[in-house]
Amino acid sequence: MDHTADELAVIVERANAQGRIVLVCEHASNTIPERFENLGLSTDQQQAHIAWDPGALALARGLAEHLDAVLIHAGLSRLIYDLNRPPHAAGAMPARSEVYDIPGNAQISPAERLARTNAIYLPFHDRLRHEIARRLALGLDPVLVTIHSFTPVYFGQQRAVEFGVIHDADPRLAQAVVEAAPENLITRLNEPYSAADGVAHTLAVQATPMGIANVMLEVRNDLIADPAAQSAMAERLAPVLARALARISPPQAGQ
Amino acid sequence: MDHTADELAVIVERANAQGRIVLVCEHASNTIPERFENLGLSTDQQQAHIAWDPGALALARGLAEHLDAVLIHAGLSRLIYDLNRPPHAAGAMPARSEVYDIPGNAQISPAERLARTNAIYLPFHDRLRHEIARRLALGLDPVLVTIHSFTPVYFGQQRAVEFGVIHDADPRLAQAVVEAAPENLITRLNEPYSAADGVAHTLAVQATPMGIANVMLEVRNDLIADPAAQSAMAERLAPVLARALARISPPQAGQ
Repeated sequence: MDHTADELAVIVERANAQGRIVLVCEHASNTIPERFENLGLSTDQQQAHIAWDPGALALARGLAEHLDAVLIHAGLSRLIYDLNRPPHAAGAMPARSEVYDIPGNAQISPAERLARTNAIYLPFHDRLRHEIARRLALGLDPVLVTIHSFTPVYFGQQRAVEFGVIHDADPRLAQAVVEAAPENLITRLNEPYSAADGVAHTLAVQATPMGIANVMLEVRNDLIADPAAQSAMAERLAPVLARALARISPPQAGQ
Repeated sequence: MDHTADELAVIVERANAQGRIVLVCEHASNTIPERFENLGLSTDQQQAHIAWDPGALALARGLAEHLDAVLIHAGLSRLIYDLNRPPHAAGAMPARSEVYDIPGNAQISPAERLARTNAIYLPFHDRLRHEIARRLALGLDPVLVTIHSFTPVYFGQQRAVEFGVIHDADPRLAQAVVEAAPENLITRLNEPYSAADGVAHTLAVQATPMGIANVMLEVRNDLIADPAAQSAMAERLAPVLARALARISPPQAGQ
């Protein structure tokens, strides 16, 4: 291939983990390489939810530790390339996100779109795909769980949901997570959005065609705003995932 | 990644083709590398449909020429790795195919399963995925067409169908191909098998999640048994594909 992968395109932590779950955090980082000149955004905008999912990486790291899971995450802002979108989606390199224009993405040439696809999207998804294929070849029955956060206020509307559980074609794990969720956490299936909104690309491209269980978890970002809250949420949600997984695929005798 | 790609895992022809169609031939070759010691098969068995799709590569090459299409095909036998199956499918490295035992696949260790996945499956599908992603990023609206042949007699039963047209989740192109097929060619939708039989992996993993039009074409191999017949079939089917494609996505004004 005639492309150079960006060294921040994909970061793998706990590569030798023994658990079944493969954790993914596509919107882990708000890093914008210097050559993009901040995409024309203010410092505040670069810290906002449009650039990343605040708190999601710390939550994913906590879950990875509790569940002995490998974690594959992005090292670049979703505004450079949103890894949860295919190369031809407007949202892959958005010219506008919620109420904000993204000046650096206003006029992306086909060549620039291809360069970002080659440097970021393909290396990330290839690495994730190889991890899943390795586990499938070895008979390890992998499960894909993606970790996201969402903003409490979107287009001026307050969101009541605290924990969103989203599925692609196979709803098994998502339904089991909702059933296992804590009573004092406002949990909804396919809220604040669903696969019909085009937000389940990673599940659709990595899990659905392989027939492996999968779910996308969304936590409202005001609930994971600092390290103590992130750690506490990981401690709450790790057993939820473990129980949900046990419910859909009980351990077999002799294993 | 800690694997070495087999140099025959993926072969690309007409890389600079300008047409929209990406042609794929997963079962193009009956080549078995020396280290596999013919998988314990007789010379006749190595020539049979269990090892490859006889005639399919020549048909695909003819279609590629008529349609100005890139062609991505395998250089190794499907008995080493069937590229139209995921790594955990029994049929990826089958111990039995139709009425034949495959001695060399009788006892495949997890490590060997992983080695073949890394050396053959991943390089082939990565290369195909990169080709599709490149076209998506450039706005070229790609279409995936896979070319297969099937045996006239299967488990002792004669097959009447001559041209099988198989789809995954999106039936648009398959239906249009059936409608455009020649009257004197016995054409059936989702015969001699369908996605429900697990035979549409390449479509499911490469086309469906990207939302691109796709179809798997199956020609009965006695109809493409020599170069003259292969060339004639390519000449018959190329306009069928072109008409089908025009029907599902008419050219836009100004293009």
